[in-house]
Amino acid sequence: MSPSDDEIQTVSQRLERFTGQQLSAMAPLGSEAALFLRAGADALAGGKRLRARFCLTGWRAVAEASGRPAPFTDDVVAAAAALEVFHAAALVHDDLVDNSDTRRGRPAAHRAFEATHTAHTWAGDAAGFGRSAAILLGDLLVAWSDDLFEEGLLASAHAAAARAEYARMRRDVTVGQFLDVAEEAAFITAPDGEHAERALRVASFKSARYSVQQPLLIGAVLAGADAEQYAALSGFGHPLGIAFQLRDDVLGVFGDSAVTGKPVGDDLREGKRTLLVAYTRERLGAGARQLFDELVGDPTLDAGQVAALQGTIVDAGALERVEQLITENAEAADRALRGARLGHGAVGALRDLAQAATARAS
Amino acid sequence: MSPSDDEIQTVSQRLERFTGQQLSAMAPLGSEAALFLRAGADALAGGKRLRARFCLTGWRAVAEASGRPAPFTDDVVAAAAALEVFHAAALVHDDLVDNSDTRRGRPAAHRAFEATHTAHTWAGDAAGFGRSAAILLGDLLVAWSDDLFEEGLLASAHAAAARAEYARMRRDVTVGQFLDVAEEAAFITAPDGEHAERALRVASFKSARYSVQQPLLIGAVLAGADAEQYAALSGFGHPLGIAFQLRDDVLGVFGDSAVTGKPVGDDLREGKRTLLVAYTRERLGAGARQLFDELVGDPTLDAGQVAALQGTIVDAGALERVEQLITENAEAADRALRGARLGHGAVGALRDLAQAATARAS
Repeated sequence: MSPSDDEIQTVSQRLERFTGQQLSAMAPLGSEAALFLRAGADALAGGKRLRARFCLTGWRAVAEASGRPAPFTDDVVAAAAALEVFHAAALVHDDLVDNSDTRRGRPAAHRAFEATHTAHTWAGDAAGFGRSAAILLGDLLVAWSDDLFEEGLLASAHAAAARAEYARMRRDVTVGQFLDVAEEAAFITAPDGEHAERALRVASFKSARYSVQQPLLIGAVLAGADAEQYAALSGFGHPLGIAFQLRDDVLGVFGDSAVTGKPVGDDLREGKRTLLVAYTRERLGAGARQLFDELVGDPTLDAGQVAALQGTIVDAGALERVEQLITENAEAADRALRGARLGHGAVGALRDLAQAATARAS
Repeated sequence: MSPSDDEIQTVSQRLERFTGQQLSAMAPLGSEAALFLRAGADALAGGKRLRARFCLTGWRAVAEASGRPAPFTDDVVAAAAALEVFHAAALVHDDLVDNSDTRRGRPAAHRAFEATHTAHTWAGDAAGFGRSAAILLGDLLVAWSDDLFEEGLLASAHAAAARAEYARMRRDVTVGQFLDVAEEAAFITAPDGEHAERALRVASFKSARYSVQQPLLIGAVLAGADAEQYAALSGFGHPLGIAFQLRDDVLGVFGDSAVTGKPVGDDLREGKRTLLVAYTRERLGAGARQLFDELVGDPTLDAGQVAALQGTIVDAGALERVEQLITENAEAADRALRGARLGHGAVGALRDLAQAATARAS
């Protein structure tokens, strides 16, 4: 059984307790500060809580094997909550980077601040204010994630090891995000034969480590994982994270907009240089490849052009190759768990999470 | 004697050791990652190292009083270096918020990334890439500052207390920066009688705590300051930090561009709602106040308009009142040190730093 809604509820309550304390502490600063902190609390609402789930389950996998089942201790609940705060920070900045207007069905932070500016009839440029405020909101959320994580570590026997995992996660994802943004620009000068390897590197840093492997390991380390348990969870988390990102790539091109909540072919308009794109280009002649490069990243693509690009990707065998890679990575993840000295209940939960992450439709 | 160039050299060497390790660790990731990390290292060059100086001197003030003079231990050197990394992060994001093209005599990070994009003949919009990359660079530098701070704390007996000071600093400055940005928009709907108080609140959070008080206290805590020493340094740091910011405000309106390196009246074009502006508005009639509000924040102000605004500020007595407040705060800072059980050499250094911070011309 994957982490139940009750367990995730514990994380949400921890988040609410933390943001409540922050809002109280800053209340004497007046209404603009309150508005800023409230935006921080709002940014934490919703989402799949994927990272929190992996963190809790990583902890359980080790704790159960040592005969210490749930309830969760505060260090892992705070860590799971901190991962969600950090992710909210990343999304606030990501929406600026991608110029996205919506997030989780609501206005992106910079657009919400813009609307606040307009509603208050403040002076100056509302859109500029929105972007500036969102940069600072992301910074506030990063600070909050650290503070929450450290609150949990105050009574933890494994603080130094958990802190090191968390620090690695933060560096890796930031570099990964840069490589992702850079690839949309730099692909044009990179040797064609290296595109697939480069796309997989972005998937590893931006997603596999950040969304799956490191959250699992942070939880495991907090439960006192030994080297063997650590290696098993690490060996499960990375390929699963790759499969997760590749599924995301497929949905970004072929996903049903009614289910994903995003326009069909959104990744194509954004110009994301995913493995699907890299594999497709390998099979195109020089002329077709140039045409393909010109269309991918054109924000004005219409439905017909999206369909043509989808057809090209399918015809090049790229979709099939990526689906195959998803399967292989999911299998590799599963193999890593076999025979590992991890709690049976938690291993079942990990398999459920793996299934949900790689077979999902949204 | 204020922290000598030798002492600051120790901080610079610590920074170089850290960035060297980061670059080596990420070297397998290829040229784009190297370019990103190199931009991080570049962002650490130059500057007055004000925060590092206060941190080192706060440590010395306590260590000397306990009969433990320099050499500095790694925890305080790493903390001083981490403060400079955090400040570099803040400046990278600040230059985006303020649309500033230059920093420390070189292109701002977003403009440098834009130039990189152009020089590599990469695909897409160079300016958009520059802004996205700079958001992520600020995030990387925040992560680095934490990592460097924690490296120092590994062998520190005062890790938890130092961590709490550092966390408070980060929250306060981020909220302060938001209040600063918000005030440029929200002043228009705030009661006129509250503008001065609001400007002083921004100065306290964005600058007094961040630039002076907290760096001092982080150093002091790492040296094991007792409650009395902590209170003395806190009572010195805050008024000095206010005086420091008010001097900055005066230079932002009246500074000699040949010395400050910024155009005369830069703060007026940016629309910063400083105490100078608040005091001036208090003395203007409704009509003149509206005219004043329309000019402050106009990026196209010419030299004649800047001179007219300067004249208005002087005639309203605002410059004189702010200069008076700088003097009063500097005196209050000085009084806080009297009779405190702090090392004599370090107290002398603090007085030198105070003198340099409040009487400077750039």
